Amino acid sequence: MKTDALATLLGLDDLAGHLVDVEVALGQALRSDNAYLSDPGLRVVEGGGKRLRPVLTIASAAAVAPDDFWDHRVRSGAVSVELVHVGSLVHDDIIDAADERRGVPTVNHIEGPSHAILVGDYLLARAGVEAARVSKEVAEVLAQTIADLCDGQSRETVDLFNVDREVDSMLRSVRGKTAALMRASCCIGALCTGRTGEPVDALTRFGEAFGMAFQIVDDVLDIVSTTRAMGKPVGHDMKEGVYTLPVLYALRSKGGDRLRSRLGGLIDDPASIAELLELVKANGAVEQALEMARAFNRTAADALDTLDDSPVVAGLSKLPAAYLEWALSEKTAGTYTLVG
Amino acid sequence: MKTDALATLLGLDDLAGHLVDVEVALGQALRSDNAYLSDPGLRVVEGGGKRLRPVLTIASAAAVAPDDFWDHRVRSGAVSVELVHVGSLVHDDIIDAADERRGVPTVNHIEGPSHAILVGDYLLARAGVEAARVSKEVAEVLAQTIADLCDGQSRETVDLFNVDREVDSMLRSVRGKTAALMRASCCIGALCTGRTGEPVDALTRFGEAFGMAFQIVDDVLDIVSTTRAMGKPVGHDMKEGVYTLPVLYALRSKGGDRLRSRLGGLIDDPASIAELLELVKANGAVEQALEMARAFNRTAADALDTLDDSPVVAGLSKLPAAYLEWALSEKTAGTYTLVG
Repeated sequence: MKTDALATLLGLDDLAGHLVDVEVALGQALRSDNAYLSDPGLRVVEGGGKRLRPVLTIASAAAVAPDDFWDHRVRSGAVSVELVHVGSLVHDDIIDAADERRGVPTVNHIEGPSHAILVGDYLLARAGVEAARVSKEVAEVLAQTIADLCDGQSRETVDLFNVDREVDSMLRSVRGKTAALMRASCCIGALCTGRTGEPVDALTRFGEAFGMAFQIVDDVLDIVSTTRAMGKPVGHDMKEGVYTLPVLYALRSKGGDRLRSRLGGLIDDPASIAELLELVKANGAVEQALEMARAFNRTAADALDTLDDSPVVAGLSKLPAAYLEWALSEKTAGTYTLVG
Repeated sequence: MKTDALATLLGLDDLAGHLVDVEVALGQALRSDNAYLSDPGLRVVEGGGKRLRPVLTIASAAAVAPDDFWDHRVRSGAVSVELVHVGSLVHDDIIDAADERRGVPTVNHIEGPSHAILVGDYLLARAGVEAARVSKEVAEVLAQTIADLCDGQSRETVDLFNVDREVDSMLRSVRGKTAALMRASCCIGALCTGRTGEPVDALTRFGEAFGMAFQIVDDVLDIVSTTRAMGKPVGHDMKEGVYTLPVLYALRSKGGDRLRSRLGGLIDDPASIAELLELVKANGAVEQALEMARAFNRTAADALDTLDDSPVVAGLSKLPAAYLEWALSEKTAGTYTLVG
């Protein structure tokens, strides 16, 4: 979703302005006289990304302190979660031996893996500095979130090529690798306003559920979208041995045995991948996965029930469904939907 | 130095007991139901190391709060600096493609580089959690220190095989890669007692100067010690293109041209390394480097002048010289000394 659509949905007139402030602060956080670290660091941070996590931080702050939420603390919180996002991607790209991300060459590819280790560490460290400037609570949530990302990523690694991967185990991995940082983005937004207790907990639950739905839709898109719409080859996860929710459901469906006999190892030719994607799509597994995404979206919306009504709370409660419907529609030319 | 010698020098009767508490807390910080992260994490943490950084944290706390310094905050501070030490070594071992450290196989060697990236990230993240539990100040110092480690490490990388490496540039690298964490260990010890201002600053200056001397002596040992005494091949830095202080002084000495013509690329045969080590030792470069270590030791001792007199302050002021004299004597069979 574009920033103006998000601003309208969330009732945040100044969202674009706040995001510009975040952008400036991101640059300041990384600028140094050490070009070896700050040049690639700035390149990956400025290389785009939708800034969804800073939006969540800003909107969460506004949800608990509608009248006067925007200050340097919320900005630091937003900067810290985005730096964790980017820093962890730099390390993920080494682990995945990825040459490109969103069409842009990775640090791993341009500068090499050793260099990328230090750049990732630097981004994560600068995130910690930003968080610590707000409060010990924010610093602890941020550091624990980095540990959670490691947990989720490692659970995925352990289950690579495992056709018997359990759905619960897969969901636990998603909770760490994706939901933890979206949970932290919301939690930190609320904490940055000085709130404690239930309002913070409500936004924390919201962010986690949104994160779960977000990853499931992302996993569905890797099955049902096209290379052209995604800007990268589809079926990539399956090829690399990451069996996501639709694949696990397909393996358990009526036609699952045929799929099972083909998975379990690296698949290199595009024709095989195309064929396997059709197998996954054949028996309702995609719809089953989308149903779980819908359930997480409902959990997210329900989590906000304890907050005082306001336009931003109302907007946030609609955000997961609206955001993911937009992504699904955009990347599948309207073939798939979350509505209904 | 053994713990009982350190306890006597520092006038800290319970040092061994405090270190046992730290050891238990290190284990608790890493234990989890994710064996992929915690097994190698615990292995490297329990794999030894002298726990010098926790000793500095404990002694620094005692220096500013002699009567009642030992509590969970100081323990968390000590745990956090040790976890940063170990976590950064796990990443360094990937960058250096090191199979062993202190005779123990590295995570990079046993579990492989991708796994080691996550283990290092996990150790650094857990360090951040421990620090944040104390205070935002401690969390910020710790996070900034991780950024400083990246800075120092990257400056070393940039100058690999550079025979024209400037002494100032080399010292700046040492300030980041070694002195920053020893500085933080002392600073955090003082901060954990709730002190602010000059007592904290004094211990910060002390830790940094000790760290500089510490690295210089370590660099000298790589030139003048023996494989047998070190438990690893000497001349390793030179072989790998890291030209440390004694090498830079030797390059600038009368016989420096001969050395210069031989350096600048990887050196693979042990006979050449032995010959080059003799060249470095020939013209007073080692003594010149040791003179700089002595100067940093004096700076460290002087830094504590503003603190109230106490046995622990007196002991700390003697620690850098005593500790490094012990290391030098032990590893060169008394051939080299800092005294005089």
